[in-house]
Amino acid sequence: MARMRDQSATIRASSVRYREIVADFAARIHRGDLPPGTRLPPERQLALQLGVHRSTVTVAYDELAADGLVDRRRGSGTTVRGDLWGVAPDWARYLAEGTFGPTAPFSERIGAARRIPGVIDLVEGMIGPDLFPRAALDRAARALSFPAEMPYPDPRGEPRLRAIIARQYAEDHGLDLDPERILITTGGQQAVYLIARALLRPGDAIGIEQPSYYYSLPFFQAIGARLVPLPVDELGVQPGALAAAYNRYRLRLILVTPTYQNPTTTTLPIERRQELLALCRELNLPIVEDDGYRQLALDGPPPASLLALDRESRVIHLSTLSKTIAPGIRIGWTVAPGPVIVRLAEIRRQIDFGMSPIAQWVVADLLDRSDWATHLVRLRAALRARRDRFASDLADQFGPALRFTLPAGGLHLWAHWDGPGDDRRRLEAAIAAGVTFAPGRLYGAEEGWLRLGYSRADGVEAAEAIRRLHRALIALG
Amino acid sequence: MARMRDQSATIRASSVRYREIVADFAARIHRGDLPPGTRLPPERQLALQLGVHRSTVTVAYDELAADGLVDRRRGSGTTVRGDLWGVAPDWARYLAEGTFGPTAPFSERIGAARRIPGVIDLVEGMIGPDLFPRAALDRAARALSFPAEMPYPDPRGEPRLRAIIARQYAEDHGLDLDPERILITTGGQQAVYLIARALLRPGDAIGIEQPSYYYSLPFFQAIGARLVPLPVDELGVQPGALAAAYNRYRLRLILVTPTYQNPTTTTLPIERRQELLALCRELNLPIVEDDGYRQLALDGPPPASLLALDRESRVIHLSTLSKTIAPGIRIGWTVAPGPVIVRLAEIRRQIDFGMSPIAQWVVADLLDRSDWATHLVRLRAALRARRDRFASDLADQFGPALRFTLPAGGLHLWAHWDGPGDDRRRLEAAIAAGVTFAPGRLYGAEEGWLRLGYSRADGVEAAEAIRRLHRALIALG
Repeated sequence: MARMRDQSATIRASSVRYREIVADFAARIHRGDLPPGTRLPPERQLALQLGVHRSTVTVAYDELAADGLVDRRRGSGTTVRGDLWGVAPDWARYLAEGTFGPTAPFSERIGAARRIPGVIDLVEGMIGPDLFPRAALDRAARALSFPAEMPYPDPRGEPRLRAIIARQYAEDHGLDLDPERILITTGGQQAVYLIARALLRPGDAIGIEQPSYYYSLPFFQAIGARLVPLPVDELGVQPGALAAAYNRYRLRLILVTPTYQNPTTTTLPIERRQELLALCRELNLPIVEDDGYRQLALDGPPPASLLALDRESRVIHLSTLSKTIAPGIRIGWTVAPGPVIVRLAEIRRQIDFGMSPIAQWVVADLLDRSDWATHLVRLRAALRARRDRFASDLADQFGPALRFTLPAGGLHLWAHWDGPGDDRRRLEAAIAAGVTFAPGRLYGAEEGWLRLGYSRADGVEAAEAIRRLHRALIALG
Repeated sequence: MARMRDQSATIRASSVRYREIVADFAARIHRGDLPPGTRLPPERQLALQLGVHRSTVTVAYDELAADGLVDRRRGSGTTVRGDLWGVAPDWARYLAEGTFGPTAPFSERIGAARRIPGVIDLVEGMIGPDLFPRAALDRAARALSFPAEMPYPDPRGEPRLRAIIARQYAEDHGLDLDPERILITTGGQQAVYLIARALLRPGDAIGIEQPSYYYSLPFFQAIGARLVPLPVDELGVQPGALAAAYNRYRLRLILVTPTYQNPTTTTLPIERRQELLALCRELNLPIVEDDGYRQLALDGPPPASLLALDRESRVIHLSTLSKTIAPGIRIGWTVAPGPVIVRLAEIRRQIDFGMSPIAQWVVADLLDRSDWATHLVRLRAALRARRDRFASDLADQFGPALRFTLPAGGLHLWAHWDGPGDDRRRLEAAIAAGVTFAPGRLYGAEEGWLRLGYSRADGVEAAEAIRRLHRALIALG
């Protein structure tokens, strides 16, 4: 066939071929599929591979060089250039000036370390696979039947799931909640994001416990919120200190986790809750209550939620299924006064039109089954056993060198190590020894604190993790 | 039993009862369950209902009045007061000062009208229930099997779904896409939101087609972006006018829908696309391409996407399954240069940790089946028939009074009515006649334009909708 072609057809064909080669490489280079420094295939090899004359490849590579995309050097072949941002839009500049920053290097480091094979992960705040209600979720998925059509969803979330949550709140909080006051969110995280977007102006100060999980959330920076630390003692936020912070920083709202706080695991006693509410009434200050750990009460029921104690629509409350099912389920909710819920739903509609109802249908089915209660009972029993074993191993291994109190609920143990080194060095030493933990600095704590997740590792693995941690910390001197 | 109680016990019991009544009403009033103006039950009635002395209710109501929660007026009973914001946190002020505004009244009006029973809805841009692939979704859900555990998901979305989309892009766009350059989003809406948050600073100007769906999106205001209209003619954006807008407003990026644009249905010819890309190269301006309607090509394939034509990583591309499955499925995606995708994923992780994978698993299964292609063929055929019938009925009913061109794709028909009245009056007249449409003003068009959705109503209903619309517009004079 090739021999049958006349000369002009051959020329056209090879010209097409050469342009294709240029276009293909240019696109792959610009898109980052061929990062700077990548060596293009040798001309002869590519020519053979594509079934074209070597000269076709040569011309194509020359053109790529003329476009500034590659360097051609005798001996070292053809390599992708490193300074391409001048050709494409300056994405780096755009991203640097956008409203969100990159993840902090410290968080990145921890995330990367957790993915190293063989490293035992004590960062995770997630129940183990043996406790994950997989079979129940499979059953719920099989029971799923799609409706006749799927218009834009209610931005507050699926009515059935909201009704079930309202029913659970009657039991767990003694509250007669109107499901219209509940908004389903993509995890507790989105609830906090929406609340912040709804209520805060750039520059506003919000009070958070010190230390706090919220300290590590970069979106507050993106929003322009100033985080003001609220001093805590072993019983949680000190109401007296709140008044001082309010006067000094003109707080716009406070965001607290009164029950099994993350990372300290402290629980605010009922009297403190009452005091906090009374003080916030005096200051006319709204309270956002993160109640995500309530279901993981290991030593009897925790005090009433701020939501349950609130008589003035002062509290915006949020929770999640991340702790009782899995973080990957991505379902949380917020309970708020009517006008706030309306605005949160509007923001939701504006930014994502509300989440897919499919996960909500599956989860509603799961929560509506009688085995949900069984799951929670089993979960608490298993976590209690793991906590006790972990604490006992920790005490055996470290003796008095590591101070901690037994957490009454949640997934973590909060411990302090008095030895030398800073959190960064301790973390690196631990990683080198084959274990990770969440250093207190991530949460704005002073040096020396470690958040240790006991919820996943079985006894043998947990004991090994504790040995490694001990070895790492001791080795620092 | 009651008679057996001694006097002090009765007093204690009624004192508890009275406090309970106060607390219950106070909570319901503060939470908005009993809105201002609500009349509380008459004292005698409530007393009977609760089985307490009438005086207990009287004392409770007096206390509510003393707390400023209700008005008590002889003759008109006890009603909830209207000025309660001074008692609870001033949520109205908080919301007024937050970064998001409420939905515009015009949009609210249209939304409300669509829910009036008997009103035929020509606003909707959604395929009808007869075309919704319900059985295939049910099959996909039944095939779902949960993994051993569900950690926080990849914020870019589920790998399998991204791989399937990459494969489809090879077919539909002739592109060899790395799935790592794809980010799954909660509909196309969230893609635009994330892109705007990643790339824009407050005060930045972005160019959008005039008219445009994006004109109606309130989140651009929340972000502080200025929308600059890009003049369009019957072939779409005019590249020459873009240069002028760029010089005048220092555009930071442009956001265009080159294929079956919403609401005008125009499609940018290939030459204009090349010109637009060349001009944006000259101006070093990024382009966001909304390609959500491509699959709904009714008269042969549309021109290549800007993404496919882009050789410089200039284009951020987004699409959605809202048009081919249903808006309620809430799955879209964006294709962007490597560093942009990385940042979008980070923002995602910061604001909601990524969406639930469950809907993505179901949809991946659906798109991976051979009947997906069958669905699209069937869908296009049905939409083509509906479009033709609708256009023919429209021409028959209105004659030359309503101008429109047959859309080559999408779910809408864009028509102009020369008669008197403004868009608001036309809309109200239509609602009164039992039909709604999307007035052009919603999209920043001049007066007189109507976006009419032909994708849902069957022949008989569509004909009736057109009759009603005609009656309404003619009646205006």
